Amino acid sequence: MRLSELSEQSGVSTATIKYYLRERLLPAGRHVSATQAEYDESHLRRLRLVRALLQVGRLTVATAREVLAHVDDESLGRTIRLGAALWALPHGPEPDEDAPETATARADVARLLADLGWTTARELGELSPAHRSLVASVATLIRLGYPCDVDYLTQQARVMRRVAVQDLDAMEEFPSEAEQVEAAVASAVLYEPLLTSLRRLAQAEEAAQRYGL
Amino acid sequence: MRLSELSEQSGVSTATIKYYLRERLLPAGRHVSATQAEYDESHLRRLRLVRALLQVGRLTVATAREVLAHVDDESLGRTIRLGAALWALPHGPEPDEDAPETATARADVARLLADLGWTTARELGELSPAHRSLVASVATLIRLGYPCDVDYLTQQARVMRRVAVQDLDAMEEFPSEAEQVEAAVASAVLYEPLLTSLRRLAQAEEAAQRYGL
Repeated sequence: MRLSELSEQSGVSTATIKYYLRERLLPAGRHVSATQAEYDESHLRRLRLVRALLQVGRLTVATAREVLAHVDDESLGRTIRLGAALWALPHGPEPDEDAPETATARADVARLLADLGWTTARELGELSPAHRSLVASVATLIRLGYPCDVDYLTQQARVMRRVAVQDLDAMEEFPSEAEQVEAAVASAVLYEPLLTSLRRLAQAEEAAQRYGL
Repeated sequence: MRLSELSEQSGVSTATIKYYLRERLLPAGRHVSATQAEYDESHLRRLRLVRALLQVGRLTVATAREVLAHVDDESLGRTIRLGAALWALPHGPEPDEDAPETATARADVARLLADLGWTTARELGELSPAHRSLVASVATLIRLGYPCDVDYLTQQARVMRRVAVQDLDAMEEFPSEAEQVEAAVASAVLYEPLLTSLRRLAQAEEAAQRYGL
């Protein structure tokens, strides 16, 4: 399809599409003449993802470009490609190395991962931003005087593992690895706020069931 | 205990404690003389919560005061007291009434809640900020061209309900209703970022298990 049709089908203005092309957020179309290029389904898909990253994830153009470079890097294995794309997304706080609670938090997280038997998470350790945010959040709990209950975290982590199974099952329904990785990134950006809303709704529902309205 | 001891035990400076007292984030101590007041465990607990709301939740002083007023309102039933405190916390986006996708999103969320049999959530409807954010997030999915799979949301919601059961079980271990409500608010502020980290770690672990590292 031509640029005008890509704009119509995606609902994104041609000016914005040209901007994304210039910023290399969207790959160039196939040139059919000196002044015209052809776009296809993969461009439509990519446009959706770019809008999700910029508008919902509020990523900067530079960060979005970094995420998409990992999504497109076919030289990586699927786990790494997925991981690299997700790692480049914005994530929580970093551990404060000057805070005395950080060492305790680190030991708690190590025990949690050992209890869970999550060997990859243990191996990668704080290379993973999610791991670092977890350490930082646990350190905050301790600093504020809330007990960090590793058993409670273990329970929650097991539930999150079941969510991950559902997520990867849904992802695997996409035909190509490129689409699978795109879907995983979109889901991280779009579904995380949605899960928070569902969790609060579930809490209210459970409370009403227990204590009445 | 005296103010100086409250400061020592909480790690919060006396100047900051005085500021919280002036802003009515912390209830006044029991006056033992014209110039001295006595503080107790409830003040220590409240100080922890105030710091969680301001430093981690990044609430404004006015919002924190509103949340705490609901926490302290013994005239409310437990579900409402809990709900009111959580509803005052910052939440996700509001539905855009001018967007054509909002009506579709509303119908999707209605079907989701009917499938789940969550009668309170259906009754309260968009009085609940979590409900409104859910509608807004689903509308965004639709607008960006991502299909909103109600079956997938139903699965995720069931998992979140199990999380809510664990949360309320943990909450009920606190001896008084006041402490229970405080714990629920602290948990919403402190554990939501932690759950996001756990979810991403779980995804990486599950991916490594399926596709190797």
